[in-house]
Amino acid sequence: MSGRPLDVLEASLDALVTVHLKDGTIYHGVLAGYDQHMNLVLEGDDVGDVHGELDATAVQDTTIIRGDNVVTITT
Amino acid sequence: MSGRPLDVLEASLDALVTVHLKDGTIYHGVLAGYDQHMNLVLEGDDVGDVHGELDATAVQDTTIIRGDNVVTITT
Amino acid sequence: MSGRPLDVLEASLDALVTVHLKDGTIYHGVLAGYDQHMNLVLEGDDVGDVHGELDATAVQDTTIIRGDNVVTITT
Amino acid sequence: MSGRPLDVLEASLDALVTVHLKDGTIYHGVLAGYDQHMNLVLEGDDVGDVHGELDATAVQDTTIIRGDNVVTITT
Amino acid sequence: MSGRPLDVLEASLDALVTVHLKDGTIYHGVLAGYDQHMNLVLEGDDVGDVHGELDATAVQDTTIIRGDNVVTITT
Amino acid sequence: MSGRPLDVLEASLDALVTVHLKDGTIYHGVLAGYDQHMNLVLEGDDVGDVHGELDATAVQDTTIIRGDNVVTITT
Amino acid sequence: MSGRPLDVLEASLDALVTVHLKDGTIYHGVLAGYDQHMNLVLEGDDVGDVHGELDATAVQDTTIIRGDNVVTITT
Repeated sequence: MSGRPLDVLEASLDALVTVHLKDGTIYHGVLAGYDQHMNLVLEGDDVGDVHGELDATAVQDTTIIRGDNVVTITT
Repeated sequence: MSGRPLDVLEASLDALVTVHLKDGTIYHGVLAGYDQHMNLVLEGDDVGDVHGELDATAVQDTTIIRGDNVVTITT
Repeated sequence: MSGRPLDVLEASLDALVTVHLKDGTIYHGVLAGYDQHMNLVLEGDDVGDVHGELDATAVQDTTIIRGDNVVTITT
Repeated sequence: MSGRPLDVLEASLDALVTVHLKDGTIYHGVLAGYDQHMNLVLEGDDVGDVHGELDATAVQDTTIIRGDNVVTITT
Repeated sequence: MSGRPLDVLEASLDALVTVHLKDGTIYHGVLAGYDQHMNLVLEGDDVGDVHGELDATAVQDTTIIRGDNVVTITT
Repeated sequence: MSGRPLDVLEASLDALVTVHLKDGTIYHGVLAGYDQHMNLVLEGDDVGDVHGELDATAVQDTTIIRGDNVVTITT
Repeated sequence: MSGRPLDVLEASLDALVTVHLKDGTIYHGVLAGYDQHMNLVLEGDDVGDVHGELDATAVQDTTIIRGDNVVTITT
């Protein structure tokens, strides 16, 4: 799981990720896609498990996040 | 509906989308166009259904949203 | 009137548009020009009709708006 | 005076312009030059007439304005 | 350890780094990857030693930090 | 002294300039260099004359100003 | 020591510099590297002399400063 940032995103496809945005909101969902700007596509997780990240919003629909809002992506 | 962010936009043409902007406003309308900067074109929905997103502004005229204002696009 | 954002601008030349800026100001005028950065040229409307947008500033002289200030353009 | 934004600037060379900046300041002077980033060169106007724009600063020396500060340029 | 910024990052792979972000948060972890935008990948340190940086968050999972949030990286 | 912004900077080399930054600070010094981003190099003026600009900081050492902080440069 | 901004940085390698950041912090250290974005590498100074800049932080470890945070670099 180590390597360049985009390699980590590639390896995280179809896995749960937690995304912190500059406005303080936190999204949690399955990483369905990304591009070189770190624009992201998250999809809902059937299980809905946010494993301890209390303030996270569990994505329900397909959500595109524009990359320039992203602070961190945790896999 | 999975894939790269622009592929998701392409697949969402003519469908209802909800767009959250950095200033906190939320637009709801039919996605009529986009470009690689995530500049968007929204048009009014005849039905006017905002399906539960209480604070969303339902677009009535053709509205261009400049991409650098976008936080998320939900399909 | 649907299509890519710049196509919508092209189709809106010589028509009245309402432009919302990031600082909260709203301009209303005839779209006289634009470029790929969404820099805009607005000109005054002889009629001066702002059709219900109460807080809009009706452009009187030729006004260039630098594109990075734009949030939305409504046609 | 209609056309693309940079064409309007070209047509406004040696004419009085009013420039609104993002920090709220307003400059008034003769447009002596510009480039593709909308960096501007303003020079003092011998007459010193700010024609009704009460809060404008009449440029006295040669002033370069970096384009990313510009909101609007009125001709 | 001297040289261009990206050379210093290359030399710091697999070492502990402290990253200060624009929002005031501080991350501490093992540098697992980076790219030319200073996007970073941090991983948890088994030892968990933050050596005196009291306010730092010790990274536990693999964390991608988008480069435009970074102020400083200390090795 | 008229022309494109970078031409004005070229013509101002070795002359006193006043630089207003986005954070409100004002620098005064001899323009010793610049580049296409409007990054500037200011050096101290032996005379130390700030000719009436009361809040300006007279540069004493060689100071590089990163261009994206610049609002105006007055010659 | 005059010339283009990057030439001044090149001439300042291995010398003490003071760097003012947009968040108000000030770093003081030996310039060990830089790149075309004004990303900087500072290293500790054995002497630890901050010559009169009272609020400066004397760098102790190798510190990379991302260039977009920089306001001024004084040599």
